[in-house]
Amino acid sequence: MTGRSPDFLPEYSLPVCDLLRAMMARLTVRILFVGCLFSTLLIECPAQTLADRLGYPAGMKLIIVHADDLGETHSVNAAAIKALEAGAVNSASLMVPCPWFPEIADYAKSHADADFGLHLTLTAERVYYRWGPVAPIDKVPSLVDQNGYFHHDWEAHQRINPKDVETELRAQIERALAMGVRPTHLDSHQYRLIMSGKELFDVVLRVARDYKLPIFVTRDWFADHPYLQASLRSGDIVIDHTVTIEPDVPPEKWAEFYLNALKNLQPGVTEFIIHPGFDDEELRAATRERATWGAAWRQRDYEFFTSEQFRQMVAQQGIKVITWRELAQQFREKVSAGSTK
Amino acid sequence: MTGRSPDFLPEYSLPVCDLLRAMMARLTVRILFVGCLFSTLLIECPAQTLADRLGYPAGMKLIIVHADDLGETHSVNAAAIKALEAGAVNSASLMVPCPWFPEIADYAKSHADADFGLHLTLTAERVYYRWGPVAPIDKVPSLVDQNGYFHHDWEAHQRINPKDVETELRAQIERALAMGVRPTHLDSHQYRLIMSGKELFDVVLRVARDYKLPIFVTRDWFADHPYLQASLRSGDIVIDHTVTIEPDVPPEKWAEFYLNALKNLQPGVTEFIIHPGFDDEELRAATRERATWGAAWRQRDYEFFTSEQFRQMVAQQGIKVITWRELAQQFREKVSAGSTK
Repeated sequence: MTGRSPDFLPEYSLPVCDLLRAMMARLTVRILFVGCLFSTLLIECPAQTLADRLGYPAGMKLIIVHADDLGETHSVNAAAIKALEAGAVNSASLMVPCPWFPEIADYAKSHADADFGLHLTLTAERVYYRWGPVAPIDKVPSLVDQNGYFHHDWEAHQRINPKDVETELRAQIERALAMGVRPTHLDSHQYRLIMSGKELFDVVLRVARDYKLPIFVTRDWFADHPYLQASLRSGDIVIDHTVTIEPDVPPEKWAEFYLNALKNLQPGVTEFIIHPGFDDEELRAATRERATWGAAWRQRDYEFFTSEQFRQMVAQQGIKVITWRELAQQFREKVSAGSTK
Repeated sequence: MTGRSPDFLPEYSLPVCDLLRAMMARLTVRILFVGCLFSTLLIECPAQTLADRLGYPAGMKLIIVHADDLGETHSVNAAAIKALEAGAVNSASLMVPCPWFPEIADYAKSHADADFGLHLTLTAERVYYRWGPVAPIDKVPSLVDQNGYFHHDWEAHQRINPKDVETELRAQIERALAMGVRPTHLDSHQYRLIMSGKELFDVVLRVARDYKLPIFVTRDWFADHPYLQASLRSGDIVIDHTVTIEPDVPPEKWAEFYLNALKNLQPGVTEFIIHPGFDDEELRAATRERATWGAAWRQRDYEFFTSEQFRQMVAQQGIKVITWRELAQQFREKVSAGSTK
C-alpha cells in the first residue's frame, strides 16, 4: 500500500468504498513519511532519487505543486489560474474532454510558459454534470455508458478495451494540440491508467513516448503495482514521491496535514497533487452528491496553497519548487544525453 | 420580416451582425403589435387562431411562458427551476447535448408534470464553454468543427447535411427518453431548424411526427419562410404568435417591453420565449464574449417573470396561461379527433 492513493478507488460513494478509502487513507498517511524504510521490505530501494540523477546535491528536496482537474468546471479554472498567477501553484493538468477545456486552452495559448500537462480522462465521475469522449463514441464503445457519457466508474466486471483507451488518449492529445496547448507532461485522472493493470499502463506509456511527454509515475506506487517498474525504462522520468490529502483529514486539520508533509518531506522530487477550486454555486452543484473532492474541499486546498504559511514553510525547509518543464529539460541534459535507453 | 426573430442570426457577434440585429429588432418590435395588418400584405391571414381551433371564446388570449436553454449551465437550470416552482414560468425546453443536461433530466424525472420539451441543439455558440453532438461525431461530420464541437455558427458557405441533422436529432431524443425525460414538445435552439430552409425543416417535422411531439412553429414566421406553411398539415399545432426580447431594448426598459407586449397581446396563443438565468460567476464566464443573451440579460428575464408586476398584468388583461401539454391534449380532443390529417 506504500504511497498508493485511495483516489483511484471509485469516487462514486458507496459505504464500503468509504470504509476502504478511510482505511487506506490512514495507512497512506502513516506510511508516507516512513517511505523507503517500508519499501525496502517489498522492493529494492533505488539507489538514486530523481534529484540525484538530475545532479542536485545529496538530500535535496524538490516539490511540484500540481493542480489537477483544470477544464472540469469554470470554478476550478478560475481558482487554478489565480493560484498559478500568485506563484502558489507551479504546475497543473487539463481535462480535454470537459466542457470548460476551451477556457483553459485559451489561457494556455496566451500563457505559453505555464506548466500545463494533460490530465488524461476516461471517466465522468459526477452525477449531475457529465462529459464523454473526444473520439467518436462508436470508436471507443468500452469507455462509454448507455447514454454516451464516460462511465461514472469502472466496475470490476467491466472490460475496458486497451484499443479504445489508446484511441481516446490520442484524440485528447490531438485536440489539445489543435487548440494550441503545448503540454509539458501527462497524468491520469483518478490514476485509472496507472492502477488498472499492465495493459492500460503500457498503452499510456506508449502514447507518452510517441509524443515525447513524461507521464506522472512515482516510486511510491511500485510495491503495489510491480508492472509499473517492469514497464519503465531508465529513459523515463519517475518522480520519487507524491503527497495528496485524503478524506479522513478533517477540515480543521487541512493546513496541519500539508505543513507536516512539508516538514517531513523526503529527499528527492515530490509531487503535491492538489485540487484547488472555489466553493461557489457551480462547483457546489457539480459535486453535490458527495463531499470528497467537493467544493469545500477544493476551497480549502486553494486557501492553504495560496497562504503565507505555505510559502513560509517551503522557504524555512529549504525546499526547491520545480516544474515539469524544468524537470524534463534537466532530464534531457543530465540523463537522456548520457543513457543508451 | 413579420415576427421573425433576429436570434437566428449568428450569435457570435460581428459589427455587421450587430447592425443587422438592431435593424431587425427595431422592425420586429414595431411589427409585433401590428400583427395581422402587416401579414395580410404578404400572406393570407388564417381565418382561425389556434385558440379558435381549440374552442376558446373568440378573442381569447393565451400565453405559454417558456424558458429556453435548460441544461446549458447550472445557473440556467437553477433559475428556471426557481421560476417554474414559483409558478412564473410554465414551460421550458432542455438542451440534451449540454453538460448540465443530467441535472435537469434528473429534475424532470422527479417532476413528471413539468412541461418540458427538448430544445434541439446543433450549435455550440459560446467561446470558452462548449459541447458537441450526442451522436458519434463521425456519423454527423457536417455538424462539427475540427475539434469535434458543434460549430459556433453556420456560415453561409457551410453545407449542413440533412442526414446528419436527422441522425443527431434522433440521438438527442433517444438520450432524453433513456434518461427518463418525457418531452411534451420540441423546439430549435437559435431557430436553426426553422430558419435554415425547407430541407432542415422537413427533417425536424418528420422526426417530430415520428415521436408524436408538437414542434414550436408560429404563424409569425410564415411570411419570411413560406416553406413552413407549405410543409405543415392541419394536424400540426401552429402557435399564433411569439414574443421575445431583442438586443436593442436597454436594460432599464426590460419590464416596459414585456408589459407592453402583454397589454398589446393579440388574440390566440402566444409563446413568450424567455431566457432566465442567474448573473453569477459561472454564467458570466460562460457568456463573457458578448452581452446578448448573457448573464445580466438572463437575470433581467428571471426578475421580470418572477415579479409581481408580471403576475398582475396577466391577471388584469384576463390572459390565460397554458402549457404545451395542455395544448397538445386539447388539440388531440378538439382538432385531431375530427380531422382526416
